[in-house]
Amino acid sequence: GMWISGKQHTGPPLMTVLQDLSKIHNSKTRATSLFEWLISPLAPADFFRNIWEQKPALIKRDNHRYYDGLFSTTEFDRILREDNVKFGVNLDVTSYTDGTRETHNPPGRALPLVVWDYFKNGCSLRLLNPQSFCRTVWNVLSVLQELFGSMVGANTYLTPAGTQGFAPHYDDIEAFVIQLEGKKHWRVYNPRNNSEFLPQFSSVNFRDRDIGEPILETVLEAGDLLYFPRGFIHQGDCLPDAHSLHITISSYQRNSWADLLEKVLPAALQVAVEEDVEFRKGLPLDYLEYMGVQHADLKDPRRDAFIQNIQSLIKKLSDYAPVDAAVDQKAKNFLHDCLPPVLTPAEKTHSVHGAPVTLDSGKVKDDTLQIELETKICLLRGGIARLCSEGDACLLYYSSENSRIYHRDEPNYMEIAAEHVYAVEYLIHAYPRYVPVRSLPCSHEDEKLTVATILFEKGLLTTREQLNPLR
Amino acid sequence: GMWISGKQHTGPPLMTVLQDLSKIHNSKTRATSLFEWLISPLAPADFFRNIWEQKPALIKRDNHRYYDGLFSTTEFDRILREDNVKFGVNLDVTSYTDGTRETHNPPGRALPLVVWDYFKNGCSLRLLNPQSFCRTVWNVLSVLQELFGSMVGANTYLTPAGTQGFAPHYDDIEAFVIQLEGKKHWRVYNPRNNSEFLPQFSSVNFRDRDIGEPILETVLEAGDLLYFPRGFIHQGDCLPDAHSLHITISSYQRNSWADLLEKVLPAALQVAVEEDVEFRKGLPLDYLEYMGVQHADLKDPRRDAFIQNIQSLIKKLSDYAPVDAAVDQKAKNFLHDCLPPVLTPAEKTHSVHGAPVTLDSGKVKDDTLQIELETKICLLRGGIARLCSEGDACLLYYSSENSRIYHRDEPNYMEIAAEHVYAVEYLIHAYPRYVPVRSLPCSHEDEKLTVATILFEKGLLTTREQLNPLR
Amino acid sequence: GMWISGKQHTGPPLMTVLQDLSKIHNSKTRATSLFEWLISPLAPADFFRNIWEQKPALIKRDNHRYYDGLFSTTEFDRILREDNVKFGVNLDVTSYTDGTRETHNPPGRALPLVVWDYFKNGCSLRLLNPQSFCRTVWNVLSVLQELFGSMVGANTYLTPAGTQGFAPHYDDIEAFVIQLEGKKHWRVYNPRNNSEFLPQFSSVNFRDRDIGEPILETVLEAGDLLYFPRGFIHQGDCLPDAHSLHITISSYQRNSWADLLEKVLPAALQVAVEEDVEFRKGLPLDYLEYMGVQHADLKDPRRDAFIQNIQSLIKKLSDYAPVDAAVDQKAKNFLHDCLPPVLTPAEKTHSVHGAPVTLDSGKVKDDTLQIELETKICLLRGGIARLCSEGDACLLYYSSENSRIYHRDEPNYMEIAAEHVYAVEYLIHAYPRYVPVRSLPCSHEDEKLTVATILFEKGLLTTREQLNPLR
Amino acid sequence: GMWISGKQHTGPPLMTVLQDLSKIHNSKTRATSLFEWLISPLAPADFFRNIWEQKPALIKRDNHRYYDGLFSTTEFDRILREDNVKFGVNLDVTSYTDGTRETHNPPGRALPLVVWDYFKNGCSLRLLNPQSFCRTVWNVLSVLQELFGSMVGANTYLTPAGTQGFAPHYDDIEAFVIQLEGKKHWRVYNPRNNSEFLPQFSSVNFRDRDIGEPILETVLEAGDLLYFPRGFIHQGDCLPDAHSLHITISSYQRNSWADLLEKVLPAALQVAVEEDVEFRKGLPLDYLEYMGVQHADLKDPRRDAFIQNIQSLIKKLSDYAPVDAAVDQKAKNFLHDCLPPVLTPAEKTHSVHGAPVTLDSGKVKDDTLQIELETKICLLRGGIARLCSEGDACLLYYSSENSRIYHRDEPNYMEIAAEHVYAVEYLIHAYPRYVPVRSLPCSHEDEKLTVATILFEKGLLTTREQLNPLR
Repeated sequence: GMWISGKQHTGPPLMTVLQDLSKIHNSKTRATSLFEWLISPLAPADFFRNIWEQKPALIKRDNHRYYDGLFSTTEFDRILREDNVKFGVNLDVTSYTDGTRETHNPPGRALPLVVWDYFKNGCSLRLLNPQSFCRTVWNVLSVLQELFGSMVGANTYLTPAGTQGFAPHYDDIEAFVIQLEGKKHWRVYNPRNNSEFLPQFSSVNFRDRDIGEPILETVLEAGDLLYFPRGFIHQGDCLPDAHSLHITISSYQRNSWADLLEKVLPAALQVAVEEDVEFRKGLPLDYLEYMGVQHADLKDPRRDAFIQNIQSLIKKLSDYAPVDAAVDQKAKNFLHDCLPPVLTPAEKTHSVHGAPVTLDSGKVKDDTLQIELETKICLLRGGIARLCSEGDACLLYYSSENSRIYHRDEPNYMEIAAEHVYAVEYLIHAYPRYVPVRSLPCSHEDEKLTVATILFEKGLLTTREQLNPLR
Repeated sequence: GMWISGKQHTGPPLMTVLQDLSKIHNSKTRATSLFEWLISPLAPADFFRNIWEQKPALIKRDNHRYYDGLFSTTEFDRILREDNVKFGVNLDVTSYTDGTRETHNPPGRALPLVVWDYFKNGCSLRLLNPQSFCRTVWNVLSVLQELFGSMVGANTYLTPAGTQGFAPHYDDIEAFVIQLEGKKHWRVYNPRNNSEFLPQFSSVNFRDRDIGEPILETVLEAGDLLYFPRGFIHQGDCLPDAHSLHITISSYQRNSWADLLEKVLPAALQVAVEEDVEFRKGLPLDYLEYMGVQHADLKDPRRDAFIQNIQSLIKKLSDYAPVDAAVDQKAKNFLHDCLPPVLTPAEKTHSVHGAPVTLDSGKVKDDTLQIELETKICLLRGGIARLCSEGDACLLYYSSENSRIYHRDEPNYMEIAAEHVYAVEYLIHAYPRYVPVRSLPCSHEDEKLTVATILFEKGLLTTREQLNPLR
Repeated sequence: GMWISGKQHTGPPLMTVLQDLSKIHNSKTRATSLFEWLISPLAPADFFRNIWEQKPALIKRDNHRYYDGLFSTTEFDRILREDNVKFGVNLDVTSYTDGTRETHNPPGRALPLVVWDYFKNGCSLRLLNPQSFCRTVWNVLSVLQELFGSMVGANTYLTPAGTQGFAPHYDDIEAFVIQLEGKKHWRVYNPRNNSEFLPQFSSVNFRDRDIGEPILETVLEAGDLLYFPRGFIHQGDCLPDAHSLHITISSYQRNSWADLLEKVLPAALQVAVEEDVEFRKGLPLDYLEYMGVQHADLKDPRRDAFIQNIQSLIKKLSDYAPVDAAVDQKAKNFLHDCLPPVLTPAEKTHSVHGAPVTLDSGKVKDDTLQIELETKICLLRGGIARLCSEGDACLLYYSSENSRIYHRDEPNYMEIAAEHVYAVEYLIHAYPRYVPVRSLPCSHEDEKLTVATILFEKGLLTTREQLNPLR
Repeated sequence: GMWISGKQHTGPPLMTVLQDLSKIHNSKTRATSLFEWLISPLAPADFFRNIWEQKPALIKRDNHRYYDGLFSTTEFDRILREDNVKFGVNLDVTSYTDGTRETHNPPGRALPLVVWDYFKNGCSLRLLNPQSFCRTVWNVLSVLQELFGSMVGANTYLTPAGTQGFAPHYDDIEAFVIQLEGKKHWRVYNPRNNSEFLPQFSSVNFRDRDIGEPILETVLEAGDLLYFPRGFIHQGDCLPDAHSLHITISSYQRNSWADLLEKVLPAALQVAVEEDVEFRKGLPLDYLEYMGVQHADLKDPRRDAFIQNIQSLIKKLSDYAPVDAAVDQKAKNFLHDCLPPVLTPAEKTHSVHGAPVTLDSGKVKDDTLQIELETKICLLRGGIARLCSEGDACLLYYSSENSRIYHRDEPNYMEIAAEHVYAVEYLIHAYPRYVPVRSLPCSHEDEKLTVATILFEKGLLTTREQLNPLR
């Protein structure tokens, strides 16, 4: 593992960081900037070159207040009081004692009195997806997802002093463990073998004797960060003198080349079947007599020829792989997974949400803003929408109307008329530049206005100037 | 197309052929022998080398009685009287008049009075899967399936003089049209383009203007045969002076390399993911910014690198393809599709079906036959059973208990204990040789007897000598 | 229980009985006649007045051959050899030893060798629904169902000497235990209490200590019959010196007034809601405050008024009960449960099955029989079809196309056009009289012919004279 | 219809009403008090005696501000801006022009810009279940549901001047139309016939010619109320000079005697079958020969006897009707339908929600409140929970954890141990009295504390004194 430590490391408080971010127009730049603060003093470029998906990293800052404002036990308590938190759905009560991992969820709503009683009795509390309840976490994750191009999630863990809540295990995600309060003793172990390095699925709970010696052992204090790739086994326990609150930010679940190949291969086979008769030819009349597990040890030249033909067809398949279409399937899933954007005040006043339409005495006020040919427009986020073709239709998938609750709604999309496709594509490629509606590649001016209005009304656009209700 | 004709061609009647077949022990040889008679004077080897999956073939024999005994209108009438034939399930009433194809099935049972009334009024009758009702057809198809290694099916078509029952179309199977009574005017057309040659799915009904000029036009008379590969468009109509009865024997539905690849590819990907970390690595952080249909026209070196990586992974996939396991999946499906074997009298007396066990006054007669160590045994058919591994278990799939009704029952299989696997494999490889039970590779003699008894009791074995009830 | 015994009782053999039955036109009379033979020397009228649904009855005939021809171990063996009998579906292998009831069904087909081996080892064999495999049983049950107006089923039981196959229990059907071979020791017990007399569902397996002393104990010998109503506990075991084969014929499963009320009540409520506003009025605003289990002990006049209103509404419901429509629902289910009729030779030649239509050289022979206005027609069986109204349509349900396999097919029915309803009803009411087609109450002569032809073609009619093919 | 009008009618503003309500302990009294204000100057007792479920009533107050604070277009606009309102799910855009009723919902989120554009173009807006978004509506409905003992729902309707949004129709609920802004011209018509008076289901859209002359025609102005029972046809349209905003509060959907009978009848039949052998006796052997629609016209004494028996069984059924158990089924459904209670500040501090448990530096503060034997407790609402028996278990269903979104969650319930049932029942019957924990009828003091704690922790109890954290 790689170690960074030494003297105290300081940085701007999160609220200032978020305020500063709101002045950055490009959502990708915003994401990088926030991530830079998150892993400072490591540089993102170095991190992704030398550490990401390779080995754990530890950042000790000797600055307990570095992450202040992100999440706290006070916020945890507020959520329990104000939100309809359900045991087993949003909150898990767990313990790990003498090698035994247990879950203690009762049914129904998790009211503070009951929750804190479990905590007093030594149980750990895992709040799932705090972004559903906490606006700051929502904001941070929704910004970061533009960097990762893959869903960014989170869980928070509150552990009583002197206890451990979970057995040693590895996860299927890249994990950023951010210590928020108190401290926790962590041990990280190498994957047990090559095939458990960067695994597709999480492990079962291990026993100590299964996992060897830790490669990294530390006490994480508030303000510190610990990163480890998927497959690295880990366990954390509280010292007798301090409780612990941390949030784990995660990404890259099922986001490997194999996950893309799962989409590519059936599509490639379909294309190959259509275009290449070699794929459609019948199998040899007698292949069942020498192929199959019961014939695996047979020495027979027909086996070699058969296997060679399969292998050569698989290789040919690469010529037929519709990679872009398969990427679109992943992109669609990602847009469905995405958090909706958190809008800055300026973004509100420069988008449909700031449209000064109101009713007065049952009349719509006549100063409705108008998109005009000279209006300069830009997508609200780099990754907020994506054009995908489906059969003959062209669909625009988008995340602006997603719920903060993971997958509560179906994917959102709208069909784009053939004559508008180039204009939408033009806007996507223009990002982060503002372009006048007049510049959209449509044959008629009213179609340019139509495209702009459709996207604007779905909350997908910002305008450079505030649409002036008084003009 | 290839033409064979000339002077009269004769051969033994089917009943003699079947009787002779019953003297051939090896089921594969039986199948070839029956097929030889079917396409005589073409030789099977020539047929499969020069015609099969390549082009139509016509065999005119000037011998109306060549196929006598296979199926007839008398048999058709008997089936209607004796069996519970259902419209829409077992029998279709159709017409094709002035370019319009119609189906006229009423609900319920197809009683002869009603069926023949439709026929009198110019409708064609298609009896589906006559093997369910007619023992000879069942016998012929069950023998042939050992040659093709793929389900062999059949339909019979009875058409009134001067009418046509079906629109021009192509099928997804290799078709052997066997004229049984009367005559029919046939036209066969080339596939409309390369991608409809050896297609995976049948076509819609065509109009005449869609299909060009026939490459083969003939009047098929009783005793003649017409073969054409899947994808070749065809239509047949009756001359004003004669009705027609033919049976179409078919095979090779969804039996192409692509159909096997459908099984191979997901399995290969799974193996590759387990063994090769390159498949498990994360996708590039920014791939959604240059990949996907909306970026298809982008000139960006990252695109080339991305596509190249996908292609190289697909090529590497061929190293991980578990071809034998995938073949077993096809083999399992084939065994589920198979007709059960039709046993010859000798096979009955030399298998479990001939076991002379009976009851007398409520007592089981004590002369139950016994499999002993010296008993010489052999599988009943070369393709009657197949060892497949499923997870950790080893399963023997078999067709001896299948129904004559397609897929009426679930696939039949039994788990083979680890210590019996080699013995079962040994028997499979020994086919068509008889081997003594003593020679089975088991550690104990009683296990040899157990394996033999289990398979014998499921009807999968024949014994060389009749098990003597009097010993 | 009631006992009948004494000196030897003889009667005609079953084959003669069935032959004689075939001369009886009225299917209801046939049924009574066959039942008379079955329970002779008891008279059916006495039986139904004094015994049926009241108490067990024992008929000892001292005539081992009385039921010869109905079913036998030889027939059992034939079925195993020729039919695809499946363990667990058609055949159960059971034992009851030292108070423990076990089922030993292996998977797959029940081949004789394996079945008889179980038997030799002391297992009982229960062949379910022998009517699916044995024509005589099918014939007997299909005749009897006309008497009972409720499905008549059967199971056969073959038990080795000195063993017992089943634990003491009671069934949900009226049972006629007919001893066919060997003998069996039977004990019958009273229902344990009033609420288990004529129960709707079968019992669990009892232990001896649960059931008290038998009210009837006997050794049933071939030719004897034992009847007991549902709810009477029973057990049978074989003496050391003889095996036993018996068939249990059963009826009246779920055929009680309550089963009819299940259909009547929802329909009655629907009618009442439509016609009587008292049913549609809202519940009292405060009813939840004094009604419900938590208030059951409350003394409150509002409770009395509430309960009184519910009770008076239930009583009013009886005025709205659409009894005939509910009976039709039961009748439809019965027709679905029914076995198809076994036709006598005369019935074949006087119905659609005897229609001398055939093909000759692909031509339908022109001597098709014709229903004419003077043709005298009659339903094939009294209970073969039933007119039911469904919504606005009038449907004729019928059993002539049922399968011998219980519920293998969906219920068979055809819609009857409004102008034909009276004619169909007329034919139903006319049974068992033959009436000329001319007498059907239709407005036009061709409609009379249409009705007759439709029913004739579905196999629902016989004609008085054989339709002459030579006319 | 009944008319109330005359000079101006005033009353306290809603906020004052709600404040005053919070001082009333008994939730039933609260409900009546709020309803009194709603229909003032009508008295609730008069209303329920003379009008409810009988005829429409109109209350004109000449006081536009009477209902101020309940709902407004400003609130409507706020909801669109802040909440994720979905077209078709939460909001319908409709029009009724020249006799044609249309729905114009686009897919996705209803953003204000788009919604108000529809309105400007003459469409009506129906916001469904405003209680999900508006706390005051939630509060009002959750109070009223205690009066009606049946779900209380609401929709709001915003209609542009000079338009109509809906066709004439009748509903399946009791409707209170409350005019909030502008005015609307209403016409109410008698049910078309007796069977449409108090119907179970809503009507289709009618045409003017179907519905006769109105029995009540008025212009409803802000501050007015119009009530009509289910079955009364109605239509409302805006005058050219004013838009309209109204909220319709509804109740008594499927809450009639028939709806209860639907639960009672199957349960009564089940009891009768168990207790009374007359229900279990078999139907007459021959009943299918004289009963059923095809025999409906038959003169046969057996028909009379049969029908009489059915009718007498139905009448006897009333003796077996488990009315309380059936009421519990309705009560369970009602509790599932219920809105969760809106807690007053005092209720918060005197219930689990005010429990002063918090975390400080990861430690639970030790001043957790304690339920003690002397603590005086009371259910939070009269109707918040209900004991129902299910099989052998006793379940307490409750509404305190319901969602504001209709049926978003499954019904909430907990099993009550047998030794706690009387204590829970005691608390239910004690309502609205406070009782000391010591008085609970349990055998041990710690069980009294357990019962109280369980209910307290689920939010079902209030304590008389605030549980003092400083004691």
